[in-house]
Parts: sequence; structure tokens; C-alpha cells
Amino acid sequence: MTSGHCCLITLLTDFGTVDWFAGTMKGVIAALAKDTRVIDLTHEVPPGDIRAGAFSLKAAYRFFPKGTVHVAVVDPGVGSNRRAIAVQTADYFFVGPDNGLLSWALRNEKVKSIRSVENADYFLRPISSTFHGRDIFAPVAAHLSSGVPLAKIGPAQDDLVRLPWPSPKATRRGIQGQILYFDRFGNAITNLDGASLRARGHSRIKIRVRGKLVCCLATHYHAVPPGKPVAMIGSTDLLEIAINEGRAVEQLKLRLSDLVTAELDI
Amino acid sequence: MTSGHCCLITLLTDFGTVDWFAGTMKGVIAALAKDTRVIDLTHEVPPGDIRAGAFSLKAAYRFFPKGTVHVAVVDPGVGSNRRAIAVQTADYFFVGPDNGLLSWALRNEKVKSIRSVENADYFLRPISSTFHGRDIFAPVAAHLSSGVPLAKIGPAQDDLVRLPWPSPKATRRGIQGQILYFDRFGNAITNLDGASLRARGHSRIKIRVRGKLVCCLATHYHAVPPGKPVAMIGSTDLLEIAINEGRAVEQLKLRLSDLVTAELDI
Amino acid sequence: MTSGHCCLITLLTDFGTVDWFAGTMKGVIAALAKDTRVIDLTHEVPPGDIRAGAFSLKAAYRFFPKGTVHVAVVDPGVGSNRRAIAVQTADYFFVGPDNGLLSWALRNEKVKSIRSVENADYFLRPISSTFHGRDIFAPVAAHLSSGVPLAKIGPAQDDLVRLPWPSPKATRRGIQGQILYFDRFGNAITNLDGASLRARGHSRIKIRVRGKLVCCLATHYHAVPPGKPVAMIGSTDLLEIAINEGRAVEQLKLRLSDLVTAELDI
Repeated sequence: MTSGHCCLITLLTDFGTVDWFAGTMKGVIAALAKDTRVIDLTHEVPPGDIRAGAFSLKAAYRFFPKGTVHVAVVDPGVGSNRRAIAVQTADYFFVGPDNGLLSWALRNEKVKSIRSVENADYFLRPISSTFHGRDIFAPVAAHLSSGVPLAKIGPAQDDLVRLPWPSPKATRRGIQGQILYFDRFGNAITNLDGASLRARGHSRIKIRVRGKLVCCLATHYHAVPPGKPVAMIGSTDLLEIAINEGRAVEQLKLRLSDLVTAELDI
Repeated sequence: MTSGHCCLITLLTDFGTVDWFAGTMKGVIAALAKDTRVIDLTHEVPPGDIRAGAFSLKAAYRFFPKGTVHVAVVDPGVGSNRRAIAVQTADYFFVGPDNGLLSWALRNEKVKSIRSVENADYFLRPISSTFHGRDIFAPVAAHLSSGVPLAKIGPAQDDLVRLPWPSPKATRRGIQGQILYFDRFGNAITNLDGASLRARGHSRIKIRVRGKLVCCLATHYHAVPPGKPVAMIGSTDLLEIAINEGRAVEQLKLRLSDLVTAELDI
Repeated sequence: MTSGHCCLITLLTDFGTVDWFAGTMKGVIAALAKDTRVIDLTHEVPPGDIRAGAFSLKAAYRFFPKGTVHVAVVDPGVGSNRRAIAVQTADYFFVGPDNGLLSWALRNEKVKSIRSVENADYFLRPISSTFHGRDIFAPVAAHLSSGVPLAKIGPAQDDLVRLPWPSPKATRRGIQGQILYFDRFGNAITNLDGASLRARGHSRIKIRVRGKLVCCLATHYHAVPPGKPVAMIGSTDLLEIAINEGRAVEQLKLRLSDLVTAELDI
């Protein structure tokens, strides 16, 4: 790789920041690729929560420069016979366990090549059975960021494990989706996308959760008084349910997968 | 900007580190200013707590190299009609919402120019209504760190929203202030500054909280036995109340704005 | 220092990431050593827990490039008369308080020189009594990473304060050790090392905690059904006790220093 070679690696894991795990991955990368910089997407994916990791990666990856190597490790099957993959798309590389974690980000990407991560020449030795982030994913990413061709990482693989993306459904009066993610502010992010909602006209859309009217679609938190619920198309271009100066998750007793409908107010 | 140009950006937000927010800001910066480095001041300002953010920025900003661009985003009014500002001082740039967040750091700085952040040429497109950290503040900071003149960011503005700094008051026997901040160790940081206290002589000063004698002024935690309260001039040059090997906030039942007096022990 | 000079500093502290402490250390380093990069090992060592800090540093330090300056600050005695040290080994520098924090990492290193950190020419001024991370350790590390010889930092010192490493003991049927650390996943890491266990043959080893049979030694978490306990040689080459898809610390009611035995199953 020459042009588009940016020497940037991102890390997304469920390793937390209390232990030395994420820092050690950066040490391995620094030792192998001294000019490569590392940016943390997050290390606070709930332990083993592949869907939350997949959602976060999808939300963030496209804001990075071309050539960035995105490493994601939420890997409850580490040490078992689950595969590891490295994927090249038109703009990025993705490296991680083949358990669905990469699949939501890859839905919108033009995949050029999928390789099974098998070539131990690019691993750290000895390989532990519990910390492939350090021993396999970090060194493979470092080598990719340094220009090692993807084809050297392992044999081609036809497809990857894919998490089904929960597509919204048309209903008689609007569209129905569900809550996919709660963020730090207690906002609930759904799978109802901005494009579909905008097509229906902003000002006349009512939002229901589990059938109960919650709010109308607005453009910012302060469109409603403090303590009141509000729905907006958020920064991921997905409908979010929030409470102005509050936390929707607790105050509205929301749960993952709760049904959310957007209805035209005719 | 040529000399003094350090290509360093700091980030202070209330975005937390669980979601992808802070990482995404770094991706935007890396894409626009490849040689700029980013340092996190903190992303754990309590959500929406402008005073805590202002205090942290004031405590940290001056330890960075000249030319550093300090970005602060604690922004409950995001998407409303609150302004955004970019400020140039003798040594630094500051970028953030115009809600008081930058004002305590700027109290001690020689302000050269205040601009309203309005020139969308330096924003990311499309601009979300909930994540100006990614779409406005990060790209504007990246451009400033790359040498774009402040004047291009938007029109000049006379002043900024200022949080009043709670100045200590002289009392009959000493000075009276209040608790401004609790740190990770449970220490209470007050607005009583070291200069005033040193002028009165260290060894003879008694500290009262809500009128009750807590301790005498000392020079280090171990000046008192484990479990006992102690007061010191801390690393921000402000009086702190601590418990040696303990947590003052819970053990002394301290609250923000509690009155603290330093009295000469005559 | 010329060859082996990598301009990399790691930070391990108990400062947390809520306040500005760690970020400020990076500002000080950036101001003194503009090409030096900083990697966080962790800032979440439990406040004042020197053993946890020592264990984390030991687990991580050797994965970094030669020449790295490892800074560790878990320093309940800050401001008292405890010493600060800077140590050069065959491959690394270590800087921190002389309270045992560095000693477990240094057990396996060839120590070339120990210096008492005393030369205030390399400190920040004024020196606070509570934040030597900012005022002493960060600037000293920055200078070392920039090539200042260790000998300039202060006078030679014969030895350092050492935490005793709890060595496993041979028993009639195997070896006995103890729990040293709980990681983010609730796994218990012991002092029983892989070399000793491998010498005894993997497949026939039973693990007891406080005398009670917990599990057999396996090679990965999924070797047992979800919810069941499993023991493995972890990524630190030490025996770990885990629960597949669970948290051993709570579910098995484990505590630090609990006795753990590995017995041949004859």
C-alpha cells in the first residue's frame, strides 16, 4: 500500500480501561509500526456484547481517513475454533474475530477482500489462548498499517459471519422499528433512519414506544421543556429518543428491542 | 500561524468513553490535520455540568505547549440557538460552545480575539443537530491547528458568556470561600487560593467547613494519621480538604458550595 | 542516548480519567519533548493500591519497544519524605515513587542503574506537594525520552523498595499459590505460573480454591459450558480462574490472597 496509506489504527474492544489490556495492544503496535498512531474508539463495550460493539463500529468507522485499520475485539469465543478475519474495503481495513462484530460496519462498505487470519508470521509468539487482541489482532493490524498486503495475512474467505440488521417495517400509518442502543446520556438510538423519516416530512411525525405516544419529532433537545421527552434524528442519522436534561432510558423505562413507531399525524 | 505552531489539540467533554463520540472526534481531526496530535483532558465531565468542565479546563490548560488548541464541549444547548466561539489568547486557542465553559480558563489569559464560529466551510457536512463536537468543534480545531487564521472561522464577537468566579471574602479573622470541585480521590477543592493563604503564614491557619473546625493547614497528606482530615494547598494552587488514606467527600459529608473558612489561629 | 531511542512514554497511575490529572501530565510531556508519544497503560489502579499497580506494570511493560520510559505513579506518600527513583534496565527506563510499585516489573529485568530523582533542573516549577506526577515524574520522563542521561537525574542509589513476590509452594500433590488480581472480566489471576504447570502436564491438573475443587485446567473459556468455572494459563502466563460467560470473582466468592492449589489428578 502506498497512496492512501495513513498509518492509523483504531481500537474497539470490551477490555475496559482498568487493566493493562488496551495499553499493551498499543505497545505491540508501537514495537512493530513505529509511525502508526492509535485512536481508541472505545474499550467499554459491555463484556461479550457483540451487537453493541458492532453498532459502535458502524457509527464511527467512516469518520476516519482512508487507509485506517479498524481493529475490533469483542471476542467471547477467544481460544475456541472461531475464525479471525481481515477485510479490505474501498477505503479501510477491518480486523477482528469472525463473529458478526464487523458485519454492521461492512453493510455499507464495498468489500474488496476477506482473508482468514492464519499466517502466524504476523502474530506475536507465543500466542496466548485468552488475549488474541495482543497476540494476533494488534500485530496483524500493525503490519497492515505498515503496508503488508492483505493477501499475506491468510487465505481468502468467501463471506463473513453477519449479524442480521433489524430493518424497519412499514405499518399502516408509518414505520416500525426498535431500540438498538443506549448511549452515555441515556438516549435510546433506534433503527429508524433519517432518510425514511425525512421523506415523510418532519413536523408531522409522532413517535410511540410500545404503542404509547412519547413525543413528536423535533430538531434539538431544547425544543421541549426540561424533563420532557423528545425524539430527534441523531448524529448516526437514526431516530433517537431523549429527555431534555434527563435520561430517557430510566425515566421512560426503555429496554433494548422495545418497538418504536413513527406515525404520520394526519 | 507559523512559529508557535504545535499541532496539538486537547479535548474536554462530557461524552464519556463508553460510546464512540470522543474517538470519532479524533477521526475527524486525523482526516483533516494528519500531523496534529490529540490529548484527552477528560471526557468524564458530569453530563451537562458546565461548571465542572470550566474548572477542569482552568486547572489543566496552561500546562500545554504554546499554540495548543483547547476544545471543550459540555453543551446541553447543542442544536438550539446558543453560539459557538473560538478564542485566541497570547498562547492558546480555545474552541467550544459560548455557555461559560471556556470562561474560567480565560480569566487569566490575555484574550486577543473572539470569533463566533459560523463559517460552514470549516464544518463537517451534513451537520447533525446533536453532535457538534464531531461536526463543528473537531473540524474547526483541526483547521486552526493546521494554521487556518482565526479570522476565517467567523465574525468578531465582543465578549463571551462568563460564569462568575466565586471570589473569597475577607472575614474578621481570615477569609471565607466555598467548595468548587471534588476530585477522584474524594478531595474537596475550594476557591481559597494559595497566594492569599501563604500571605497569612502557613503554620497558624485553621480550616472550618460550615463553621466546624476540620483541620489545620499542612503540606502533605501524611502530616496527619490515616483517617484524619487534612487541608493543603493543592496542585491547582487552591486549598483542598482531604482525608489521609480516605475520602473527604463522604467521610466529612461535604457538598459543592459548602462554606470554607481559613482563620488565623491567634 | 541515540540508538534504541524510541521517544515513547507509558503512564500507569491511580489518577482516574474523570479529572484533568493524566491529561495534564501529557501536556507537560508535550511541552518538553515534542516528538515523544504517550501511551496509557491504565489510570484506574484503585487509589493507593501499590500491589495492583505493580502487578499491572509487570504484566504490560515488556510488550513495548526498547527505550520506552515507563512512568508509574501510585503514590499515597506523595509530599512526604518517600524517595522517587529512575531506573535503567537493559531495555527500558522506569520512573516512579520508591514504594515498591516498580519492583515486580524489575524482578525480571537486568537493572543497570538506579538513581534517586533529586535534580530539580528537570522538574516543573513550582513543585506542588500533591501532584508529583505532573511536576516531577512527567518532566523527568520527558527529559529521559529526549536523551538526557539517567545520571543527570540524581545520585546513584544501591537498591529500591521491593514488594515481596508471593512465590508458589510445593505441596504433597502439587503446588499452592494465591489470587493476586481480579481483571475487568471478573477473572482471578494467581501466582501459579505456566512453566510450573506445563511441566506437570495439562490434562490432568485439578484446581482447588480454599481447598474446594473448582475445575480442571483447560485451554480456553468455551472448554466448559456457559456458567461453569474453568482454569487456564492466561495471557500473563499465570493461572487464571474464570467462569465461561460469567464473572468468577462474584460467582465463586473469590477474594485477593485466597489460596489456590493445582493438583495432579493421579
